[in-house]
Amino acid sequence: MHDIAGGIAAPTGFTSAGIHCGVKKAKKDLSLVYSSSPATGAAVFTTNKVQAAPVLVDRSQLDRSPSFRAILINSGNANACTGDRGMEDAWAMVRTTASALSIKEAEVLVSSTGVIGQYLPIEKILAGAVQAVPLLEKEGTAAAEAIRTTDTFTKETAVEFTLGGVPVRIGGMAKGSGMIAPNMATMLAFVTTDAKIDRDVLQHTTRLASDRSFNRISVDGDTSTNDMVLVLANGMAGNTPIDSVDHPFYKPFYHALEEVLIRLSKMIVMDGEGATKFIEIRMTGAATEAGAAQAARAVANSNLVKTAIHGEDANWGRILAAVGYSGIDFDPAAVEIQFGDVPILRRNYVIDFSEEQAKAVLMRKEIIITVNLHQGTASAVFWTCDLSKEYVTINANYRT
Amino acid sequence: MHDIAGGIAAPTGFTSAGIHCGVKKAKKDLSLVYSSSPATGAAVFTTNKVQAAPVLVDRSQLDRSPSFRAILINSGNANACTGDRGMEDAWAMVRTTASALSIKEAEVLVSSTGVIGQYLPIEKILAGAVQAVPLLEKEGTAAAEAIRTTDTFTKETAVEFTLGGVPVRIGGMAKGSGMIAPNMATMLAFVTTDAKIDRDVLQHTTRLASDRSFNRISVDGDTSTNDMVLVLANGMAGNTPIDSVDHPFYKPFYHALEEVLIRLSKMIVMDGEGATKFIEIRMTGAATEAGAAQAARAVANSNLVKTAIHGEDANWGRILAAVGYSGIDFDPAAVEIQFGDVPILRRNYVIDFSEEQAKAVLMRKEIIITVNLHQGTASAVFWTCDLSKEYVTINANYRT
Repeated sequence: MHDIAGGIAAPTGFTSAGIHCGVKKAKKDLSLVYSSSPATGAAVFTTNKVQAAPVLVDRSQLDRSPSFRAILINSGNANACTGDRGMEDAWAMVRTTASALSIKEAEVLVSSTGVIGQYLPIEKILAGAVQAVPLLEKEGTAAAEAIRTTDTFTKETAVEFTLGGVPVRIGGMAKGSGMIAPNMATMLAFVTTDAKIDRDVLQHTTRLASDRSFNRISVDGDTSTNDMVLVLANGMAGNTPIDSVDHPFYKPFYHALEEVLIRLSKMIVMDGEGATKFIEIRMTGAATEAGAAQAARAVANSNLVKTAIHGEDANWGRILAAVGYSGIDFDPAAVEIQFGDVPILRRNYVIDFSEEQAKAVLMRKEIIITVNLHQGTASAVFWTCDLSKEYVTINANYRT
Repeated sequence: MHDIAGGIAAPTGFTSAGIHCGVKKAKKDLSLVYSSSPATGAAVFTTNKVQAAPVLVDRSQLDRSPSFRAILINSGNANACTGDRGMEDAWAMVRTTASALSIKEAEVLVSSTGVIGQYLPIEKILAGAVQAVPLLEKEGTAAAEAIRTTDTFTKETAVEFTLGGVPVRIGGMAKGSGMIAPNMATMLAFVTTDAKIDRDVLQHTTRLASDRSFNRISVDGDTSTNDMVLVLANGMAGNTPIDSVDHPFYKPFYHALEEVLIRLSKMIVMDGEGATKFIEIRMTGAATEAGAAQAARAVANSNLVKTAIHGEDANWGRILAAVGYSGIDFDPAAVEIQFGDVPILRRNYVIDFSEEQAKAVLMRKEIIITVNLHQGTASAVFWTCDLSKEYVTINANYRT
């Protein structure tokens, strides 16, 4: 597997565009992703009970349509908590995109991100959709730019690998930064591939890879109304179809997709609002992967852990306390904690580390914290960032 | 019921002292509470799997002893994650206190709060326990001062009411501020009463009143290894014993205890690290009280809600989103949200409020947010504070 250029538009048959249509004052705010041939679709949506109109529309589209050719995404307004009018607006985005591209309405998915509880400036978005069509190109950066909200950098990646000698590509883009928590926070990710893969297998792969990437990142523990991961696979690479999880191509495809999703996830954490440090929590020696993820999530979501790391303070007690309230069963006295390569806490609460060594690890921009529960062989990795004053500044006046 | 002076030492037969013994550099760090006659004991402890030595010692004492006469509490060091040596130190605190007061070892409870993972300077604490005895007085302020950690003010209260014409008193003190979350965070509360009440009834009352006070406050969502609520009832008021929850004195006693615990809880929130605003979340129209509390807790713990209120921004979408991921079942379109007396969100996502009116409410120091789920008649109140840059400053360098 190697990196390629083109982002979301890298796989064969896919093009994209990103423009300014007027939801935001000046920045790009509308993305269009297009596939020249029908693509199988898979998705993972927010677990929040409050679901934005585009989430409801896409669920309905995915339920009844066998294939898709376009995704229209606006930033600047989430079209969430907007009732019937919000639903009408989301369906209008579907209709106009279909008409502008001369494809079926059933082949269009939509997405929105931004402020909650305000109606979309729908006329601007519909005009923008029409305007974006002639700008579709084999280059994903403009599209990746246009889905940003408080993101400070554009998040895109693309890889190429072979399945039975046939080159296959996966491209992706994401937006994140605020409100990021496990279980789909205001986090949007769009992934395209020219791999040929059955719908059920694609859905299974998308779910599993999302659980091990987007559901293992945390910025502030909140989950949003709009999150989604959409994956389109148009089959244009021409590989033998991956028709089951037992197919020999399944594993290499899964790993490539997981790699793309993990890359996008890490970019989201690195761009966490106010983040100054990237933190990897490795929970090892757990009884189950689910338990390891649960404990790692509690550590990653702890404001006290995140502020301590921000202050480069080796306050390991807060890490152990977070595992303690995570809800998993474990023996506190068996736990070992390591910062980078420096052992901090050994079994039976033996604490024997130099503050200088610990500080040296914590002064880095990327910090790995390993917690060994010594109860089994399962593990899980979780990614988060520190909590800074800047986070407060950004979120205290988001709407204004 | 009316307020009285004396705090924890207000009830008949109780005295207290607070001194500097040397755990901290200069501030008071050791409290002693004493009852001249044996008192029934009740307690609620942290739900964290990692439990500090004093928590384990007190659980053991409460299991085997019918009555208690003293509590020794140090601040500055939590004696948590300290293994066997920590247990030995906690038991040494019990033994020395018993000996200094000429009471039984089985009659002593202990408590600690402060940094995790360091051994107690036990010699200083034991010397302090002896030194505190002659300083016992009918005045609780010194004791309440000595249990503070990052608390910016002393938290104590006392009330008097009558049961069948007999005056009865309840006094209490607490420490909180950092790491406060529902389900007992680093939150210590000690309550004394001269009411005569059976042990089982006292335990039931303590559990229920704690659930509706200390378990309904949140500063940062973390729960600690040391939390406890200890209640001692020495019966010296001489009321007819409250021997069951059906006894006519049960309800007035319960309400007085709940009032004391709620007062202490609110003081803890008002003193939340870096807090500039006190926020009351009223979740109404819920199907069950537990569901109402669960939804209110999610709102109270949301960093995005807390930063928005810090910034005096009427971002009601974050409140609805938090209810959405709280895990309760509800109809988002039925929800109404009010800031103070100003309706913000009406049913069916009707948003019709003036930013000026909303801002006027949010500029206050104490803010009431009412969420009506319109699904039933149950409700719950939750108290929290805003999230400020100062919180980050305090917690980034707690140990140093």
